[in-house]
Amino acid sequence: MNKITMHPIGYIYSSYKDTKEIPIQGRFKENIEAYAELKKEYEKGLKDLDKFSHCILIYYFHKSNKLTIKGKPYLEDKKHGIFAIRSPHRPNHIGISIVKIQRIEKNKLYFTEVDIINKTPLLDIKPYVKYFDNRKNVISGWLDKHFKNGKIPNKTIIK
Amino acid sequence: MNKITMHPIGYIYSSYKDTKEIPIQGRFKENIEAYAELKKEYEKGLKDLDKFSHCILIYYFHKSNKLTIKGKPYLEDKKHGIFAIRSPHRPNHIGISIVKIQRIEKNKLYFTEVDIINKTPLLDIKPYVKYFDNRKNVISGWLDKHFKNGKIPNKTIIK
Repeated sequence: MNKITMHPIGYIYSSYKDTKEIPIQGRFKENIEAYAELKKEYEKGLKDLDKFSHCILIYYFHKSNKLTIKGKPYLEDKKHGIFAIRSPHRPNHIGISIVKIQRIEKNKLYFTEVDIINKTPLLDIKPYVKYFDNRKNVISGWLDKHFKNGKIPNKTIIK
Repeated sequence: MNKITMHPIGYIYSSYKDTKEIPIQGRFKENIEAYAELKKEYEKGLKDLDKFSHCILIYYFHKSNKLTIKGKPYLEDKKHGIFAIRSPHRPNHIGISIVKIQRIEKNKLYFTEVDIINKTPLLDIKPYVKYFDNRKNVISGWLDKHFKNGKIPNKTIIK
Protein backbone atom coordinates (compact mmCIF):
# COMPACT_ATOMS: atom_id res chain seq x y z
CA MET A 1 0.00 0.00 0.00
CA ASN A 2 1.78 3.13 -1.16
CA LYS A 3 -0.99 5.63 -1.61
CA ILE A 4 -4.14 6.21 0.36
CA THR A 5 -6.75 8.51 -1.11
CA MET A 6 -9.00 10.50 1.16
CA HIS A 7 -11.58 13.18 0.58
CA PRO A 8 -13.01 15.94 2.75
CA ILE A 9 -16.28 15.03 4.48
CA GLY A 10 -16.88 18.76 4.81
CA TYR A 11 -15.13 21.96 5.87
CA ILE A 12 -14.48 23.84 9.08
CA TYR A 13 -15.46 27.50 9.17
CA SER A 14 -13.91 29.70 11.85
CA SER A 15 -13.14 33.35 12.42
CA TYR A 16 -9.41 32.56 12.16
CA LYS A 17 -8.43 33.70 8.68
CA ASP A 18 -4.71 33.68 9.32
CA THR A 19 -2.49 31.22 11.18
CA LYS A 20 -1.06 34.13 13.19
CA GLU A 21 -4.40 34.61 14.97
CA ILE A 22 -4.84 31.07 16.22
CA PRO A 23 -4.16 30.06 19.83
CA ILE A 24 -1.79 27.08 20.12
CA GLN A 25 -4.73 25.15 21.50
CA GLY A 26 -8.39 26.08 21.34
CA ARG A 27 -8.83 25.48 25.03
CA PHE A 28 -6.68 28.56 25.67
CA LYS A 29 -9.23 30.88 24.04
CA GLU A 30 -12.46 29.21 24.91
CA ASN A 31 -15.26 31.44 23.79
CA ILE A 32 -14.74 31.54 20.05
CA GLU A 33 -17.39 29.55 18.20
CA ALA A 34 -16.84 27.81 14.89
CA TYR A 35 -18.64 25.14 12.93
CA ALA A 36 -18.05 22.17 10.68
CA GLU A 37 -20.37 21.83 7.73
CA LEU A 38 -20.62 18.28 6.46
CA LYS A 39 -21.54 17.22 2.99
CA LYS A 40 -25.22 16.32 2.95
CA GLU A 41 -24.56 12.60 2.52
CA TYR A 42 -22.83 12.51 5.92
CA GLU A 43 -25.51 14.31 7.91
CA LYS A 44 -26.95 11.10 9.37
CA GLY A 45 -23.54 10.18 10.71
CA LEU A 46 -23.93 12.96 13.33
CA LYS A 47 -26.83 11.18 15.05
CA ASP A 48 -26.33 11.11 18.84
CA LEU A 49 -23.06 13.03 18.75
CA ASP A 50 -24.92 15.87 20.49
CA LYS A 51 -25.07 13.68 23.62
CA PHE A 52 -21.31 14.05 23.98
CA SER A 53 -19.66 17.11 25.49
CA HIS A 54 -16.56 16.93 23.28
CA CYS A 55 -15.42 15.44 20.02
CA ILE A 56 -12.16 14.93 18.16
CA LEU A 57 -11.90 16.64 14.79
CA ILE A 58 -9.42 15.15 12.34
CA TYR A 59 -8.55 17.46 9.49
CA TYR A 60 -6.07 18.29 6.77
CA PHE A 61 -3.49 21.05 7.34
CA HIS A 62 -4.15 22.50 3.89
CA LYS A 63 -1.98 25.58 4.45
CA SER A 64 1.19 23.54 4.86
CA ASN A 65 2.95 22.00 1.90
CA LYS A 66 6.23 21.14 3.53
CA LEU A 67 7.69 18.60 5.90
CA THR A 68 10.04 19.63 8.69
CA ILE A 69 11.37 16.41 10.16
CA LYS A 70 12.68 18.32 13.19
CA GLY A 71 10.99 21.56 14.11
CA LYS A 72 10.86 24.25 16.76
CA PRO A 73 7.54 24.36 18.58
CA TYR A 74 6.17 27.80 19.32
CA LEU A 75 7.13 27.65 22.98
CA GLU A 76 10.78 26.79 22.40
CA ASP A 77 13.95 27.54 20.53
CA LYS A 78 15.02 23.92 20.67
CA LYS A 79 14.21 21.53 17.86
CA HIS A 80 12.28 18.33 18.45
CA GLY A 81 11.26 15.53 16.13
CA ILE A 82 8.06 16.24 14.21
CA PHE A 83 6.39 13.33 16.06
CA ALA A 84 7.15 14.99 19.41
CA ILE A 85 5.45 18.28 18.43
CA ARG A 86 2.07 19.23 16.97
CA SER A 87 3.34 21.33 14.04
CA PRO A 88 1.40 21.19 10.73
CA HIS A 89 4.59 20.57 8.74
CA ARG A 90 4.37 16.82 9.13
CA PRO A 91 4.03 13.80 6.88
CA ASN A 92 0.43 13.56 5.63
CA HIS A 93 -0.43 16.94 7.21
CA ILE A 94 -3.04 15.48 9.54
CA GLY A 95 -4.29 17.70 12.36
CA ILE A 96 -6.43 16.79 15.36
CA SER A 97 -8.28 19.02 17.79
CA ILE A 98 -10.49 18.22 20.72
CA VAL A 99 -13.37 20.67 20.69
CA LYS A 100 -16.41 21.35 22.85
CA ILE A 101 -19.70 20.57 21.18
CA GLN A 102 -22.28 23.35 21.39
CA ARG A 103 -25.07 22.06 19.16
CA ILE A 104 -25.81 20.22 15.96
CA GLU A 105 -28.20 21.63 13.36
CA LYS A 106 -28.75 19.33 10.40
CA ASN A 107 -25.32 18.97 8.77
CA LYS A 108 -23.65 21.62 10.89
CA LEU A 109 -21.72 20.96 14.09
CA TYR A 110 -21.14 24.09 16.17
CA PHE A 111 -18.27 24.02 18.64
CA THR A 112 -15.99 26.09 20.86
CA GLU A 113 -12.33 25.66 21.91
CA VAL A 114 -11.22 26.28 18.35
CA ASP A 115 -7.66 26.27 17.02
CA ILE A 116 -8.44 25.65 13.36
CA ILE A 117 -8.12 28.03 10.45
CA ASN A 118 -11.11 28.92 8.28
CA LYS A 119 -11.97 26.56 5.38
CA THR A 120 -9.94 23.64 6.68
CA PRO A 121 -10.92 20.34 5.00
CA LEU A 122 -12.43 17.96 7.56
CA LEU A 123 -11.55 14.25 7.34
CA ASP A 124 -13.30 12.68 10.32
CA ILE A 125 -15.12 13.29 13.60
CA LYS A 126 -14.89 10.96 16.58
CA PRO A 127 -16.65 11.19 19.93
CA TYR A 128 -14.30 12.10 22.79
CA VAL A 129 -14.74 9.29 25.31
CA LYS A 130 -13.38 9.89 28.78
CA TYR A 131 -12.80 6.18 29.38
CA PHE A 132 -10.55 5.99 26.31
CA ASP A 133 -9.09 9.45 25.91
CA ASN A 134 -8.43 10.80 29.40
CA ARG A 135 -5.21 9.35 30.76
CA LYS A 136 -3.67 9.44 34.19
CA ASN A 137 0.02 9.74 35.09
CA VAL A 138 0.82 11.50 31.85
CA ILE A 139 4.32 12.88 31.28
CA SER A 140 4.36 15.50 28.54
CA GLY A 141 8.04 15.69 27.58
CA TRP A 142 9.40 19.12 26.69
CA LEU A 143 6.04 20.77 27.47
CA ASP A 144 5.95 20.07 31.20
CA LYS A 145 8.46 22.81 32.05
CA HIS A 146 6.30 25.41 30.27
CA PHE A 147 3.13 24.53 32.17
CA LYS A 148 4.21 25.08 35.77
CA ASN A 149 1.49 23.74 38.08
CA GLY A 150 -0.63 23.19 34.97
CA LYS A 151 -0.71 26.94 34.29
CA ILE A 152 -1.05 27.99 30.67
CA PRO A 153 2.09 29.90 29.59
CA ASN A 154 1.73 33.49 28.41
CA LYS A 155 3.12 32.69 24.97
CA THR A 156 0.06 30.91 23.69
CA ILE A 157 -0.84 32.95 20.66
CA ILE A 158 1.12 32.24 17.49
CA LYS A 159 2.78 35.49 16.38
CA MET B 1 -10.07 20.10 -2.92
CA ASN B 2 -11.63 16.75 -3.73
CA LYS B 3 -8.87 14.28 -3.17
CA ILE B 4 -6.12 14.17 -0.62
CA THR B 5 -3.34 11.68 -1.13
CA MET B 6 -1.56 10.22 1.86
CA HIS B 7 1.04 7.52 2.27
CA PRO B 8 2.02 5.27 5.17
CA ILE B 9 4.95 6.56 7.21
CA GLY B 10 5.42 2.98 8.40
CA TYR B 11 3.46 0.03 9.74
CA ILE B 12 2.23 -1.18 13.10
CA TYR B 13 3.09 -4.73 14.10
CA SER B 14 1.07 -6.37 16.84
CA SER B 15 0.15 -9.87 17.98
CA TYR B 16 -3.46 -9.21 16.93
CA LYS B 17 -3.83 -11.03 13.62
CA ASP B 18 -7.61 -10.94 13.60
CA THR B 19 -10.08 -8.21 14.51
CA LYS B 20 -11.88 -10.66 16.80
CA GLU B 21 -8.91 -10.73 19.20
CA ILE B 22 -8.64 -7.00 19.77
CA PRO B 23 -9.93 -5.29 22.91
CA ILE B 24 -12.25 -2.35 22.18
CA GLN B 25 -9.56 -0.14 23.65
CA GLY B 26 -5.95 -1.03 24.30
CA ARG B 27 -6.16 0.33 27.83
CA PHE B 28 -8.45 -2.61 28.68
CA LYS B 29 -5.69 -5.16 28.02
CA GLU B 30 -2.63 -3.30 29.07
CA ASN B 31 0.29 -5.68 28.94
CA ILE B 32 0.42 -6.54 25.25
CA GLU B 33 3.39 -4.91 23.53
CA ALA B 34 3.45 -3.88 19.90
CA TYR B 35 5.61 -1.61 17.78
CA ALA B 36 5.48 0.84 14.94
CA GLU B 37 8.29 0.61 12.42
CA LEU B 38 8.81 3.85 10.54
CA LYS B 39 10.35 4.22 7.14
CA LYS B 40 14.01 5.17 7.57
CA GLU B 41 13.47 8.72 6.30
CA TYR B 42 11.17 9.45 9.26
CA GLU B 43 13.44 8.12 12.00
CA LYS B 44 14.67 11.58 13.01
CA GLY B 45 11.09 12.69 13.54
CA LEU B 46 10.97 10.50 16.67
CA LYS B 47 13.57 12.63 18.49
CA ASP B 48 12.41 13.45 22.05
CA LEU B 49 9.17 11.50 21.77
CA ASP B 50 10.64 9.08 24.32
CA LYS B 51 10.29 11.85 26.94
CA PHE B 52 6.51 11.50 26.71
CA SER B 53 4.57 8.77 28.49
CA HIS B 54 1.90 8.45 25.79
CA CYS B 55 1.39 9.24 22.13
CA ILE B 56 -1.48 9.31 19.67
CA LEU B 57 -1.18 6.96 16.72
CA ILE B 58 -3.18 7.88 13.63
CA TYR B 59 -3.56 5.04 11.19
CA TYR B 60 -5.55 3.63 8.31
CA PHE B 61 -8.24 1.01 8.95
CA HIS B 62 -7.04 -1.10 6.01
CA LYS B 63 -9.32 -4.04 6.79
CA SER B 64 -12.47 -2.01 6.22
CA ASN B 65 -13.66 -1.12 2.76
CA LYS B 66 -17.17 -0.02 3.60
CA LEU B 67 -18.97 2.90 5.13
CA THR B 68 -21.79 2.40 7.63
CA ILE B 69 -23.29 5.84 8.16
CA LYS B 70 -25.14 4.56 11.23
CA GLY B 71 -23.72 1.59 13.06
CA LYS B 72 -24.08 -0.51 16.17
CA PRO B 73 -21.14 -0.19 18.51
CA TYR B 74 -19.98 -3.39 20.14
CA LEU B 75 -21.56 -2.55 23.48
CA GLU B 76 -25.05 -1.87 22.12
CA ASP B 77 -27.87 -3.05 19.92
CA LYS B 78 -28.85 0.52 19.13
CA LYS B 79 -27.53 2.32 16.11
CA HIS B 80 -25.67 5.61 16.37
CA GLY B 81 -24.22 7.91 13.75
CA ILE B 82 -20.74 6.89 12.61
CA PHE B 83 -19.36 10.13 14.11
CA ALA B 84 -20.74 9.16 17.52
CA ILE B 85 -18.95 5.77 17.54
CA ARG B 86 -15.38 4.60 16.93
CA SER B 87 -16.15 1.94 14.28
CA PRO B 88 -13.66 1.46 11.41
CA HIS B 89 -16.45 1.60 8.80
CA ARG B 90 -16.23 5.37 8.45
CA PRO B 91 -15.43 7.89 5.75
CA ASN B 92 -11.68 7.93 5.13
CA HIS B 93 -11.16 4.95 7.49
CA ILE B 94 -8.97 6.89 9.89
CA GLY B 95 -8.27 5.30 13.26
CA ILE B 96 -6.67 6.82 16.34
CA SER B 97 -5.32 5.16 19.46
CA ILE B 98 -3.63 6.58 22.51
CA VAL B 99 -0.84 4.21 23.47
CA LYS B 100 1.76 4.03 26.22
CA ILE B 101 5.30 4.52 25.02
CA GLN B 102 7.74 1.88 26.24
CA ARG B 103 10.92 2.76 24.32
CA ILE B 104 12.23 3.94 20.99
CA GLU B 105 15.02 2.09 19.19
CA LYS B 106 16.11 3.76 15.96
CA ASN B 107 13.03 3.73 13.71
CA LYS B 108 10.96 1.51 16.02
CA LEU B 109 8.53 2.77 18.62
CA TYR B 110 7.53 0.10 21.15
CA PHE B 111 4.29 0.62 23.02
CA THR B 112 1.62 -1.02 25.16
CA GLU B 113 -2.17 -0.46 25.44
CA VAL B 114 -2.64 -1.79 21.95
CA ASP B 115 -5.92 -2.11 20.04
CA ILE B 116 -4.50 -2.21 16.54
CA ILE B 117 -4.35 -5.13 14.14
CA ASN B 118 -1.04 -6.39 12.75
CA LYS B 119 0.35 -4.64 9.63
CA THR B 120 -1.82 -1.55 9.95
CA PRO B 121 -0.51 1.37 7.86
CA LEU B 122 0.57 4.24 10.10
CA LEU B 123 -0.19 7.81 9.01
CA ASP B 124 1.05 9.97 11.87
CA ILE B 125 2.24 10.07 15.47
CA LYS B 126 1.54 12.94 17.84
CA PRO B 127 2.68 13.41 21.42
CA TYR B 128 -0.14 13.06 23.95
CA VAL B 129 -0.10 16.30 25.90
CA LYS B 130 -2.06 16.39 29.14
CA TYR B 131 -2.67 20.14 28.88
CA PHE B 132 -4.34 19.68 25.48
CA ASP B 133 -5.78 16.17 25.53
CA ASN B 134 -7.06 15.52 29.05
CA ARG B 135 -10.44 17.16 29.51
CA LYS B 136 -12.55 17.73 32.58
CA ASN B 137 -16.34 17.54 32.85
CA VAL B 138 -16.61 15.16 29.93
CA ILE B 139 -19.97 13.64 29.03
CA SER B 140 -19.58 10.53 26.90
CA GLY B 141 -23.04 10.08 25.38
CA TRP B 142 -24.28 6.51 24.98
CA LEU B 143 -21.14 5.13 26.63
CA ASP B 144 -21.69 6.55 30.11
CA LYS B 145 -24.34 4.01 31.04
CA HIS B 146 -21.95 1.15 30.23
CA PHE B 147 -19.15 2.45 32.43
CA LYS B 148 -20.83 2.60 35.82
CA ASN B 149 -18.54 4.42 38.26
CA GLY B 150 -15.91 4.39 35.52
CA LYS B 151 -15.75 0.57 35.64
CA ILE B 152 -14.83 -1.16 32.40
CA PRO B 153 -17.76 -3.31 31.20
CA ASN B 154 -17.26 -7.05 30.85
CA LYS B 155 -18.03 -6.98 27.15
CA THR B 156 -14.75 -5.44 26.09
CA ILE B 157 -13.36 -8.03 23.72
CA ILE B 158 -14.74 -8.01 20.20
CA LYS B 159 -16.19 -11.43 19.43
